[in-house]
Amino acid sequence: MTNAASKQNMANAIRALSMDAVEAAKSGHPGMPMGMADAATVLFDEHMKFDAADPHWPDRDRFVLSAGHGSMLIYALLHLTGYKDMTMDEVRNFRQLGSRTAGHPEFGHATGIETTTGPLGQGIANAVGMAMAERHLAARYGDDLVDHHTYVIAGDGCLMEGISHEAASIAGHFGLGKLIVLFDDNSISIDGSTDLAVSDDISQRFEAYGWQVLSVDGHDMAAVSSALSAAKAHTSQPTIIRCKTTIGYGAPTKAGTAGVHGAPLGGDEIAGARDALGWAHEPFIVPDDILSDWRDAGRRGSAEREAWQSRHAASASASAFDAAMTGDFSSDINDAVIALKNAYAAEPQKLATRVASQKAIEAIMPACPILFGGSADLTGSNNTRVAAHEIFDQGRNGNYAGNYIHYGVREHGMAAAMNGIALHGGTIPYGGTFMVFTDYCRPSIRLSALMKQRVIYVMTHDSIGLGEDGPTHQPVEHLSALRVIPNLLVFRPGDVVEAAEAWQCALASTTAPSILALSRQGMAQFRHGDMAENKTALGAYVAVEADGDRAVTLMASGSEVGIAIDAQSKLAAVGIAAAVVSVPCLELFWMQNADYRKAVLGNSPRIVIEAGMRQCWDRLLSENDGFIGMDSFGASAPINDLYTHFGITSEAVVEQARAITK
Amino acid sequence: MTNAASKQNMANAIRALSMDAVEAAKSGHPGMPMGMADAATVLFDEHMKFDAADPHWPDRDRFVLSAGHGSMLIYALLHLTGYKDMTMDEVRNFRQLGSRTAGHPEFGHATGIETTTGPLGQGIANAVGMAMAERHLAARYGDDLVDHHTYVIAGDGCLMEGISHEAASIAGHFGLGKLIVLFDDNSISIDGSTDLAVSDDISQRFEAYGWQVLSVDGHDMAAVSSALSAAKAHTSQPTIIRCKTTIGYGAPTKAGTAGVHGAPLGGDEIAGARDALGWAHEPFIVPDDILSDWRDAGRRGSAEREAWQSRHAASASASAFDAAMTGDFSSDINDAVIALKNAYAAEPQKLATRVASQKAIEAIMPACPILFGGSADLTGSNNTRVAAHEIFDQGRNGNYAGNYIHYGVREHGMAAAMNGIALHGGTIPYGGTFMVFTDYCRPSIRLSALMKQRVIYVMTHDSIGLGEDGPTHQPVEHLSALRVIPNLLVFRPGDVVEAAEAWQCALASTTAPSILALSRQGMAQFRHGDMAENKTALGAYVAVEADGDRAVTLMASGSEVGIAIDAQSKLAAVGIAAAVVSVPCLELFWMQNADYRKAVLGNSPRIVIEAGMRQCWDRLLSENDGFIGMDSFGASAPINDLYTHFGITSEAVVEQARAITK
Repeated sequence: MTNAASKQNMANAIRALSMDAVEAAKSGHPGMPMGMADAATVLFDEHMKFDAADPHWPDRDRFVLSAGHGSMLIYALLHLTGYKDMTMDEVRNFRQLGSRTAGHPEFGHATGIETTTGPLGQGIANAVGMAMAERHLAARYGDDLVDHHTYVIAGDGCLMEGISHEAASIAGHFGLGKLIVLFDDNSISIDGSTDLAVSDDISQRFEAYGWQVLSVDGHDMAAVSSALSAAKAHTSQPTIIRCKTTIGYGAPTKAGTAGVHGAPLGGDEIAGARDALGWAHEPFIVPDDILSDWRDAGRRGSAEREAWQSRHAASASASAFDAAMTGDFSSDINDAVIALKNAYAAEPQKLATRVASQKAIEAIMPACPILFGGSADLTGSNNTRVAAHEIFDQGRNGNYAGNYIHYGVREHGMAAAMNGIALHGGTIPYGGTFMVFTDYCRPSIRLSALMKQRVIYVMTHDSIGLGEDGPTHQPVEHLSALRVIPNLLVFRPGDVVEAAEAWQCALASTTAPSILALSRQGMAQFRHGDMAENKTALGAYVAVEADGDRAVTLMASGSEVGIAIDAQSKLAAVGIAAAVVSVPCLELFWMQNADYRKAVLGNSPRIVIEAGMRQCWDRLLSENDGFIGMDSFGASAPINDLYTHFGITSEAVVEQARAITK
Repeated sequence: MTNAASKQNMANAIRALSMDAVEAAKSGHPGMPMGMADAATVLFDEHMKFDAADPHWPDRDRFVLSAGHGSMLIYALLHLTGYKDMTMDEVRNFRQLGSRTAGHPEFGHATGIETTTGPLGQGIANAVGMAMAERHLAARYGDDLVDHHTYVIAGDGCLMEGISHEAASIAGHFGLGKLIVLFDDNSISIDGSTDLAVSDDISQRFEAYGWQVLSVDGHDMAAVSSALSAAKAHTSQPTIIRCKTTIGYGAPTKAGTAGVHGAPLGGDEIAGARDALGWAHEPFIVPDDILSDWRDAGRRGSAEREAWQSRHAASASASAFDAAMTGDFSSDINDAVIALKNAYAAEPQKLATRVASQKAIEAIMPACPILFGGSADLTGSNNTRVAAHEIFDQGRNGNYAGNYIHYGVREHGMAAAMNGIALHGGTIPYGGTFMVFTDYCRPSIRLSALMKQRVIYVMTHDSIGLGEDGPTHQPVEHLSALRVIPNLLVFRPGDVVEAAEAWQCALASTTAPSILALSRQGMAQFRHGDMAENKTALGAYVAVEADGDRAVTLMASGSEVGIAIDAQSKLAAVGIAAAVVSVPCLELFWMQNADYRKAVLGNSPRIVIEAGMRQCWDRLLSENDGFIGMDSFGASAPINDLYTHFGITSEAVVEQARAITK
């Protein structure tokens, strides 16, 4: 902690680097870092528990720049406090190809970036997940190992987004007292003054969520520091500190205007700001004394880290905690899944895959005790909860050790919180809703994929097979729309065996999130015999080979594998030898080598059967191949009527196969 | 208006029909209609301005069942009040194929259904759009023609959703005093008591948005009626009336529990409810006296409708109003677009298509005065505003006649509000944000398509071409993910001419919404010569024919058409004759006849160039064809570095063409 004049210089160092880097890049957002430099300086210099020399220390405070466009704020902080990979060269290369200093903070590009932000509102919701993970791990492994804060800087944009409502409401409900949000209350957004578009009483709104609300002049460092102390002292509720700031603080003509938000200031304005701030140094030059103060701040937490290491050495929970943070239970999971599959081999089951998923969770939880489940108010429909679950914090005086979360009707908030939970480490989050509501989660699903996080989305009611709820609830385009997202695995298991295997694959996928697309309706088990191999991991495989030379290959996923198998029998009766290929995961199939793919696909004409749009299959189909699926929205009716109405039947497959193989 | 005892019978008729229809369908949601029957009866019997005999009367009050799972409530109301197409047979056929009584209310299936609901939170946000449209039209055409309320029934789920925050905040900001929400405050959601997941103070929250908040016993009809009167009397703010209700009111053992939410009650429980409610009638039987009271309610508005017709006959604004409600300005738009294209022919322009879009708006607005534009706080970036725009309601004492809306950082709320604006009629809504944030809007975009509404999404910064903002802001999968939604037109114009044509197509599309995917970066005009025809309406066309026999067809959209044209020249230099096909709208291309498609596509090998994922193109590509685009997330760097890094260059096209045509 440094004195007031020095601290002003420290803040001005952030401002100068932000102006200079944006100017050099000829693009970027100087206004927010300049406005929040004072508050951020207080946070990093006085309050935040971190050690720049050990960025991965598990009990560090987490810092989330939810207003990710102000990325120079975090890059400046990381450089100044001495994170080794954030060199001045990186700062100079702001927004250039291959730099660690992308336009928005990208998780994995540099240490100290706890999450990827930029799409507004995501960061604050990630932080809620981090704070939930923190409380959960503290309850399970002890306060001596886990006891840290999660800090957020959020702007007006974050708080206008709907996801901020869901996240703040979750945080208030669970009483996440170690979550502290600094709201950059600058009354400016891109279109101009925020009063063009918003009249919310933010304080009242957050009080309604059950938060503590504090308000300060964001340029009064002592006031910000007191507020942070008050926030930390208040442990029963999350705190939002409204920091009244001037966007672009220091810029002589543009400060306080939308003009300073998202464009370089220009040479004259920068010169004027240097004068106004009393910052006489050249671009990208931070004088030694100021840098030294910052480096002291970066080292301030080392004693706390060492103390933690001592506690860790003494803790009986340390090895369980370490295993949880490592998160690799693959060997035990494999045993559990094989045992489950052997049980299915012994006694075949006709179940909806959502129920098969529940049975997989039941089987896996003892082997993988760090599953952190939940549902967006569809627990009974998603089959996400099992008997061994305890509820995470029922009300405000609850049980943070509970491993099942009632997320409420907040699909987007759930998805973003799961990203935060995964990023925090120590558990594996999964959460359920209806498949059609992947649309509500989509911005966060994309970030799971971009950040390479092991988040598992349990998406049930995966087609028109859900029946009477009708087109608003029937996913049709969603399989294609999800399969096109890079680095996302979409599983659509066809029976109880594939459902268990899909869970195993999803848990093994440490660098990509997974969607489990699961049926409402029951379907027969078609996998029998040897259960040693996880065939779902191949993406696609021959489920039933043709009796004789293949005349046609029927490819299907999920509930349509059964239709393909029916069609196969009917085709055999008319002398057409069809093979059935089950495709539980197209992405994994594309990752197999070409020889394997060729062997599975064969050379005969193909027909794909899937109760969705064909787009994601087109790469596997030539002009003369067939497709049986949807080309419109669904309808409201009992399931069998719908399959008949939309022509997704084994009869239709037979007809198409006869035409193709003529 | 009927007396208390009769009115209780009227409410019980709703309850009985709801129980009976759900029981007959063996699926559905009886709890909400039974809980809200009293409040709904008061609303329809005493307050709502409607005439069942004329469901399309423009100045009718709008009713939105945001909690769409309670669809039997609206079906019962429509049948009872005498909407001709809602026969008892339809009620008996609840949730059956081809009935008007889908699982969730579907716009277009029956008169009186003002919007499709079911995905929670959408309805309340649609209603905000309707209420905005109402104020706007009233300001433009006079209170004598437009002066109606918009009523909503919303549940806990709606209010937990993030979109409810965005919508409520918009409504509060614009002071939509004629918007009245009845909140079915029953403290139950699917997982059980709402206090499992939510602790919000709803009253405080809505006060923070600038709403009037009233609270009543939702089973006390007099109290509900007084609250509705108070809501109507309070014109400066929207009102939410918390109706404390018992879900499944009347069900002897299941009332007040989650068990009554989403499943048939079963015979015993229904018998018990009949006893408890004093409803001795057979299933689907409504005694004449009760039906007669309901039919009176359905006729109550006829005098008001006739008075409105007289005012309409006398109004100087009537013909302008009628034209607006009809919404067909195609002839004048055609003239304006051709004039603009001729200007481009005379003086070619190299512009970003977002700027070209702005020029199109400028040209079209005088021809089509009912454009109702806006942006989710990216006005300057989306180029959605032109000089002729006035701002809709700057603050709370503003100008409702203004035709440009600052939606704030609320993409989802904007999209859903636009659905409501389109459904209301009288204007054509368009709204802008970044293309990547179609993910935030996606649930509402889907509903635009499902409801066949002319909503225009102006989505700029449509590829890695946006440059430094990096992967969080770079759409990669979005073109495919949008093109796979049924009944949605995705335009990606390649120059100023196509941008103008895309606007014309979008405005002409009265049964499908449109996405305009527009570039940040400038691109050269390639369309010259005769401008009479709207070639974009063909979906794809030969932009530059091969010089000699086609050896290869280069297909591209948007900013990549220019790369294709460059490649064509380079290929000509090495003796390969390439044709360039511009594909501004794949969906429209698929709608052309096969001969036209064949003529455009030719027989030679094809290479598609588009800075996105290939999935949506695969149907046009055989195994030996080429694709130049993205197969991963983007990166943060200047645009030219990115195109080079990801290999989307004319050189790469040449290389691939040489390999293919060998």
